[in-house]
Amino acid sequence: MLVLGVDPGSRVSGYGLVEKKNDQMTCIHSGTISSSGKIPFYERIYKIFHSMEEIMTLYRPQELAIEDIFFAKNVKSALKIGHARGAVLIAAAQNGIKIFEYAPLEIKKSVVGYGRASKEQVRSMVQVILKLKTQPGLDASDALATAICHLNWTRYDCTS
Amino acid sequence: MLVLGVDPGSRVSGYGLVEKKNDQMTCIHSGTISSSGKIPFYERIYKIFHSMEEIMTLYRPQELAIEDIFFAKNVKSALKIGHARGAVLIAAAQNGIKIFEYAPLEIKKSVVGYGRASKEQVRSMVQVILKLKTQPGLDASDALATAICHLNWTRYDCTS
Repeated sequence: MLVLGVDPGSRVSGYGLVEKKNDQMTCIHSGTISSSGKIPFYERIYKIFHSMEEIMTLYRPQELAIEDIFFAKNVKSALKIGHARGAVLIAAAQNGIKIFEYAPLEIKKSVVGYGRASKEQVRSMVQVILKLKTQPGLDASDALATAICHLNWTRYDCTS
Repeated sequence: MLVLGVDPGSRVSGYGLVEKKNDQMTCIHSGTISSSGKIPFYERIYKIFHSMEEIMTLYRPQELAIEDIFFAKNVKSALKIGHARGAVLIAAAQNGIKIFEYAPLEIKKSVVGYGRASKEQVRSMVQVILKLKTQPGLDASDALATAICHLNWTRYDCTS
């Protein structure tokens, strides 16, 4: 069982593929999808959808873990993040990938043990849990944290 | 040239296909895509994308006209409308349909001649312009108004 964690954003979206075997989680791949603010907004949204489709086709994750968003700085950013998150959900549904949503507090608590942890604290714990040699970017680490949260939550031991 | 106008919403999305020939605009088809609030949110978003794809494949519109949204009642509704609007934009981009965005004020002004017109006033004018025998629903009429605005704006005379 392979889980794809995604942290969507209209400028930068982070993603991370995590597998759990014999109680050890391994990062298979992680990265970001980013677009310049200069290209039309709808092209940025389509790029997220298209890149997600490519990642899903290449790695074939069975489950998607994504943050359940309730808040945003303001209406304008809520509209933008809504488009980006929609792109990820559509790609997953299109590829028959089951979708699981977690509140930000739940993700932080699951990874750091503390719901109000900073992004940097999350990244440090992600690095320890996945035994990463180098520190991932903050967007990728948020995505990996979401995948870790899902694997902790579901208590999968994916030996397949 | 056939224009697809869309008024996206996470519960109900209106759509309308309008063609212009010899200065007369004709409604080819219009309707709504609706989902019960009981089904998971991501399924509602995927339904919008999938239905849009079906409409685009069936009618082959060359251009999409959609409201450019800047405002929403609150952050929560902005997030929802963002997902729904993203679904429409992705379907259009996926099908090679050019996307045109219009401010709500611009659409109302173009159809009714008055930027602060009510939804009912917009519907009445849509019925007159398209010579519709029956009154369309408010969601479909908003979508048809967006298509009319685009055809007025671009001054197409689509004899092809």
